Amino acid sequence: MSQPGELLVVGLGPGPDQWRTPEVTEALSRSTDLVGYQTYLDRCPPRDGQCRHASDNRVELDRARLALALAREGRTVAVVSGGDPGVFAMAAAVFEALDADPAARDILVTVMPGVSAMQAASARLGAPLGHDFCVISLSDNLKPWSLIERRLKAAADGDFVIALYNPASKARPAQIIQAFDLLRTHKSGETPVAFARAIGRPGENMLITTLAEADPRVADMATLVIVGSSQTRLVPRPGAAPWIYTPRSTPDLAG
Amino acid sequence: MSQPGELLVVGLGPGPDQWRTPEVTEALSRSTDLVGYQTYLDRCPPRDGQCRHASDNRVELDRARLALALAREGRTVAVVSGGDPGVFAMAAAVFEALDADPAARDILVTVMPGVSAMQAASARLGAPLGHDFCVISLSDNLKPWSLIERRLKAAADGDFVIALYNPASKARPAQIIQAFDLLRTHKSGETPVAFARAIGRPGENMLITTLAEADPRVADMATLVIVGSSQTRLVPRPGAAPWIYTPRSTPDLAG
Repeated sequence: MSQPGELLVVGLGPGPDQWRTPEVTEALSRSTDLVGYQTYLDRCPPRDGQCRHASDNRVELDRARLALALAREGRTVAVVSGGDPGVFAMAAAVFEALDADPAARDILVTVMPGVSAMQAASARLGAPLGHDFCVISLSDNLKPWSLIERRLKAAADGDFVIALYNPASKARPAQIIQAFDLLRTHKSGETPVAFARAIGRPGENMLITTLAEADPRVADMATLVIVGSSQTRLVPRPGAAPWIYTPRSTPDLAG
Repeated sequence: MSQPGELLVVGLGPGPDQWRTPEVTEALSRSTDLVGYQTYLDRCPPRDGQCRHASDNRVELDRARLALALAREGRTVAVVSGGDPGVFAMAAAVFEALDADPAARDILVTVMPGVSAMQAASARLGAPLGHDFCVISLSDNLKPWSLIERRLKAAADGDFVIALYNPASKARPAQIIQAFDLLRTHKSGETPVAFARAIGRPGENMLITTLAEADPRVADMATLVIVGSSQTRLVPRPGAAPWIYTPRSTPDLAG
C-alpha cells in the first residue's frame, strides 16, 4: 500500500486574491488535487496537471470523505473553502469524516486559517466587531430552529454584537425574518444593523439601518448581517454611508 | 493647508509572514508612517525613509489620535495591529478618535481585514469554532467585570463555543480563574477546553483538557482560550494532542 498523503484544509478569503494568505497560495500551488465547491475552485489559480474535484454545495461530508480517500492514496489534497475553513466551512466536515474513519488518521492534516466574511464586512463597515461578539449561522439544515432561537436570545441577553452567517436562501427565506422578530423583542429598535453583501466580490453592497427599520428580506446567501450591541455607534463619513463601530469601553451602568 | 492624507488600519496576522495578507504587505510598503505597539512594528518589513512611531501597549486612543494627526498633514499612515485590526485591536480606537474629531473625517480611512488569534488557534487545534461561537475579552480595563460575567453566563446559556481573548496579565491574574469558576457552574465538567499560546510565534504551545480539570492559571496575555459547546469533541491524532472540533450538526434534543 502506498504511503499516506497530505490533506491541506484551506480558505481563499472572502473574495479578492489580496485577502488570500501566502500560506494558502503556496498550498494550492503544491497540491495534486483540489476538492471543493465549484465556485471556490474557480477562484484558485490554474496549475497544469492538477486534478480538480468540483462538487455542488451542501455535500460537505461527501467532499471531506473524497479528500481523505485521495490523501490515503498518497495524493496532496487541498480542501478548498471560501473565507476561513474553520468558520462555518469545510474544516468541521473534515474532522467529522476523520472522527468516523480511524484508519484515515495517519494522513497528515494541516488546517490553514483565512479571513472570514464577517471580518471583510467589518473592515468595510468600520469596526462593528470591535468588542465582544457572537457568530451564529441561521441555517437550520443541520440543527433545530429551537437552538438558533435559544442562541439569538442568549446573544441579546449578553448584549453581544451579533454576526449572522447564512441568513437566508431561496429554500429558507423565513429564518432571517423570524430572527429579526425575536431580536426586536429583546433589543432596542435603535440598535444599528448592517447588511453586507458580497464584500470583496462583484456586486458588493452595504446597507446600514436600525433594528426597528430594517427589512430583513434584503438578505440572501451572500449577505453577512451584523446587529449591534447597546454601545454600537455610527460616525458620519463624507460621501458614503456612515461608519459603524463598537467602542472598546462600556460604561459601568450599575456604578 | 495640505491635502488630507490616508489612514490604513492594518493587521499583521497572529505571527508568521505567511499569515499576513498581500493587501496588508502592499499597504505597509507604501506607507510613509507606521504607528503601533513596538512589538508589532518590529514585525513589519524594513523600508528606507519610513517613519515609525512606536508606543507602549495600552495607549490605543493616543496612538489613534497621533495617526489621525499625521494623516491630516498629508502623510500615508498605517496603524498596525497584530491579528485582525477589527477584533480587539486598533480599528475601534481609530473610530473612537474619528467620532470625537469631526474635522478629521475628510481623511481617507481604509480598514484591512486579517487573520485573528482565534483563527490561528482554531486551525492548529482542528475546528473548535466550526459552529456558533462567542468571542469575549476578559480584560476589565475598559468595561465592568459585571458585564463580563453577564456575557459568560449568556454564552453558557446559549451553549456557544467560547473564545476568550486577553485571559490574564501580570496585572490581572484573577479574571480567568473567576471566569472558569463561573463557567463550571453553568457547563459540564467534561466540556473540552484548549489553551493555545503564541500560535505561529516562538514558544507556540497548546494544552487540551476539560473544564473540570483545567488549571486556568496557565493562561497569560499570549494565550487564546477556547471552551467548547456541549457538542465539541476530540479525535485522536497519532503522535500529538488530539484534534478538537465542533460538528456542524446538533441533534434535536427536544425531538
